[in-house]
Amino acid sequence: MIRVLLVHDTCLLRSVLAERIDREPDLEVVHTAWPGAAARARTARPDVCVADLDCSDSYGIAPLADLCEQAGRPATCRLLVLASAERPGLLRRAAEAQASGYVDKASTPDQLIRAIREVTAGKRFVDETLGFGFLKAAEMPLTQRELSVLSLAARGASIAEIALSLHLSRGTVRNYMAAITRKTGARNRVDAIRISQGEGWV
Amino acid sequence: MIRVLLVHDTCLLRSVLAERIDREPDLEVVHTAWPGAAARARTARPDVCVADLDCSDSYGIAPLADLCEQAGRPATCRLLVLASAERPGLLRRAAEAQASGYVDKASTPDQLIRAIREVTAGKRFVDETLGFGFLKAAEMPLTQRELSVLSLAARGASIAEIALSLHLSRGTVRNYMAAITRKTGARNRVDAIRISQGEGWV
Repeated sequence: MIRVLLVHDTCLLRSVLAERIDREPDLEVVHTAWPGAAARARTARPDVCVADLDCSDSYGIAPLADLCEQAGRPATCRLLVLASAERPGLLRRAAEAQASGYVDKASTPDQLIRAIREVTAGKRFVDETLGFGFLKAAEMPLTQRELSVLSLAARGASIAEIALSLHLSRGTVRNYMAAITRKTGARNRVDAIRISQGEGWV
Repeated sequence: MIRVLLVHDTCLLRSVLAERIDREPDLEVVHTAWPGAAARARTARPDVCVADLDCSDSYGIAPLADLCEQAGRPATCRLLVLASAERPGLLRRAAEAQASGYVDKASTPDQLIRAIREVTAGKRFVDETLGFGFLKAAEMPLTQRELSVLSLAARGASIAEIALSLHLSRGTVRNYMAAITRKTGARNRVDAIRISQGEGWV
């Protein structure tokens, strides 16, 4: 039996997806929302974590590292993510967490089940429709420092608060914001945040 | 047979939910993403539209009015929405569209199926866990004009662009933005947009 831990924040949808996976004779599944996912991984000892990286917590960043650590990955557990080509930032985060499987959310349940079996067998699985998303993920225009500035700005911090938090001068923060706006092709600061959140960078 | 049109933007999840509904002997379902939902409603002539109001288009506002009109609602079709208490703005939009059913996304598939039957029989169905969300929806702090200003700001428009678009002076737009920031309890303009989008107001 392959033990699957399914992580998704919407109970109604997660339940039906879990039912569907459970109908396969070689798969058994437990499911959870992101809050509590790491604790669940520790007790359930899954062979594979199937995780939707869209997270409905207040900042939308799924605690992927926690989940992986508690699941005992990569030694005993594989990570498979549900992703979309339109949010390259999330693909990038999954790649950094060394996910073995990438299933397009525009894909079918059968494709997901095939992917679960492949990654459990030690193979990699990448939905071909995610190709353009990986290309965009590789071309991420912002530096780590710019991402830090942008993350704080997106959470509503002022220039002064960002400066204080990152030990920078206000002028430097303004320069970073100007560079971010230019690099994302945005019209202004709010637009840069909107674009970057849409793509999953912050 | 009750004909159900299921509208949700994620194919993988929509497919398994449709499969689950289809297993009921008295329900038959067609499903679609939001783009194309209105056209699908026109041809499918559903008895009930089951719609997730979270919409992945660039601005996240589901074209609910179009869907209802093409489905022939309310004369021949009921509207049932999948909602959450955390996004009162979407509940409000559903109420304005005269939805008969409100199912919490934290609920179970069985509850959804019960709701489909109830609204088709002409009854109203409201998940009790959505109560607090309706309360918040009734207490929406912003005026229609403030919502118009905020919507444009959230899409990245500058003060000058908002002023031009709404035939207001720049000073007036600044006053509106200040009022919005104060009423939403935000620290600044970006924070006001973040809070309002989180609650589904814009």
